[in-house]
Amino acid sequence: MRSNRMDLQGDDLTDAVVASFDGSQDPRTREVMSALVRHLHEFAREVKLTEAEYFTAIDFLTRTGQISTDTRQEFVLLADVLGLSMLTVGLGNPKSTGATESTVFGPFFVDGSPEVELGGDISNGAPGHPCLVSGRVLTTKGEPIAGALVETWQADEDGFYDVQKETSGPQNRGHLTTDAGGNYSFWAVRPVAYPIPDDGPVGQLLRAGGRGAMRPAHVHFMVTAPGYARLITHVFARGDEYLASDAVFGVKDSLIADFVEHPAGTAPDGKTFDEPFYTVNYDLILATTEEAQQ
Amino acid sequence: MRSNRMDLQGDDLTDAVVASFDGSQDPRTREVMSALVRHLHEFAREVKLTEAEYFTAIDFLTRTGQISTDTRQEFVLLADVLGLSMLTVGLGNPKSTGATESTVFGPFFVDGSPEVELGGDISNGAPGHPCLVSGRVLTTKGEPIAGALVETWQADEDGFYDVQKETSGPQNRGHLTTDAGGNYSFWAVRPVAYPIPDDGPVGQLLRAGGRGAMRPAHVHFMVTAPGYARLITHVFARGDEYLASDAVFGVKDSLIADFVEHPAGTAPDGKTFDEPFYTVNYDLILATTEEAQQ
Ligand SMILES: [Fe+2]
Ligand SMILES: [Fe+2]
Repeated sequence: MRSNRMDLQGDDLTDAVVASFDGSQDPRTREVMSALVRHLHEFAREVKLTEAEYFTAIDFLTRTGQISTDTRQEFVLLADVLGLSMLTVGLGNPKSTGATESTVFGPFFVDGSPEVELGGDISNGAPGHPCLVSGRVLTTKGEPIAGALVETWQADEDGFYDVQKETSGPQNRGHLTTDAGGNYSFWAVRPVAYPIPDDGPVGQLLRAGGRGAMRPAHVHFMVTAPGYARLITHVFARGDEYLASDAVFGVKDSLIADFVEHPAGTAPDGKTFDEPFYTVNYDLILATTEEAQQ
Repeated sequence: MRSNRMDLQGDDLTDAVVASFDGSQDPRTREVMSALVRHLHEFAREVKLTEAEYFTAIDFLTRTGQISTDTRQEFVLLADVLGLSMLTVGLGNPKSTGATESTVFGPFFVDGSPEVELGGDISNGAPGHPCLVSGRVLTTKGEPIAGALVETWQADEDGFYDVQKETSGPQNRGHLTTDAGGNYSFWAVRPVAYPIPDDGPVGQLLRAGGRGAMRPAHVHFMVTAPGYARLITHVFARGDEYLASDAVFGVKDSLIADFVEHPAGTAPDGKTFDEPFYTVNYDLILATTEEAQQ
């Protein structure tokens, strides 16, 4: 099967590496690895990658893996700042379905968040102004989807997710099920713009690249319902100064909503506050599995 | 400076990510990151990378970093099996200088190897047949280079480097300085073909790709001398069954030498053996710094 793989240079080397995957049982593995090898080699050839740069890259990738833990995912951050995450989101979610647009998953989701009742509070002592987040989960025809699983997570007023600090339990993180009218609602704190973690390899890359680390304020959502395509998205705060310079290229105009400030007093759900509070209302529209595949 | 980076799709996204590095102080950073982003995006677009595959890749890279330690470098292995190491070696070492050809550095070099006298033994109890490795370090004009630093490392008869097993100290690893005639020589064990470590992510990739993990028998060299380009290479054993299917694409015909078997008796340096022993002689030719830059 194998030809003589000696004295390989240039294109012959690339061809030999591509051919080395010919024995794979899985056609998709062959397809992906062939393209990966060709583009990787084209990159190295185009920039005439030096041996010193090769070792810098090895070291960078190694440290990126080593800083990653259950609650810190530096490779997701890397994919985010290189635009690979948004590119993949775009490839997987054609815009034409009428569903809410998708954006990056990000590195801060945690499996097994607390369950919360409709209208419950997930802030759990996190610093920040109270914010009532509500809306409906709908079909592309505007019909409510009952029993949809809505998972949400967000940063606090200091710009930190709970997993980035010491807390007595999850903060601003939870999941709930929509009611018969497709409604969801919960109290958290008003999200603020925050820098992605920049004390690791990705932070070094951003600084070397002369780039900022800031993301505009947002609430994360992942919505799942049987028969519908899973939606992973954010709702961004209108007016945020970083909307047009998101470090991870994730902003869609359609995902921007008003976080309305209210003076101290009574909230729509009857809660009273002696400080200002905020409300945001955003409907999350799911494509059916069929619609999403078109 | 920054344009409105919202609603980015396809080429617009790629352009925005490339432009995000415009603020870098370092022109080479801009050049490398621009090419990296373009080729990475082209790859993802060509194969229509799915979100599931994206997460598989994140997980693969994370595990590749996490399995790496001071003595195990899984990203070097990954670059090796993708041919990126040999491609970089080829870009950095034009063949025309007349110097000994280069090949992959590999993941098993360790800084601070034991110093050994000319003719000394570095096997330190490693299993295998005794093998006298010798030759000269020469200029491209055939003149001896005295005082060159020769670093060497290799696997034992079981196919393991010392760092892959429990040992009482370094085995088959050392450094020496050439004498006035440019000579180097040391005793080690005869190298054998071995599989690259395949109990980690790279091993999974090889199996998914239907690829073998074997490398033909070889001795590693790194040779340094003031005024000369550093040489990183192997000497391969003629007749090895894996010469034409090296898992890391590293074999050059010019790097193959005879490991000659001798019956029990007296070796060229006067040592006597009651078992067969081996000898290999290979001259290592260094380009001057000037020659290497042409
Ligand atoms: Fe976030
Ligand atoms: Fe080796």
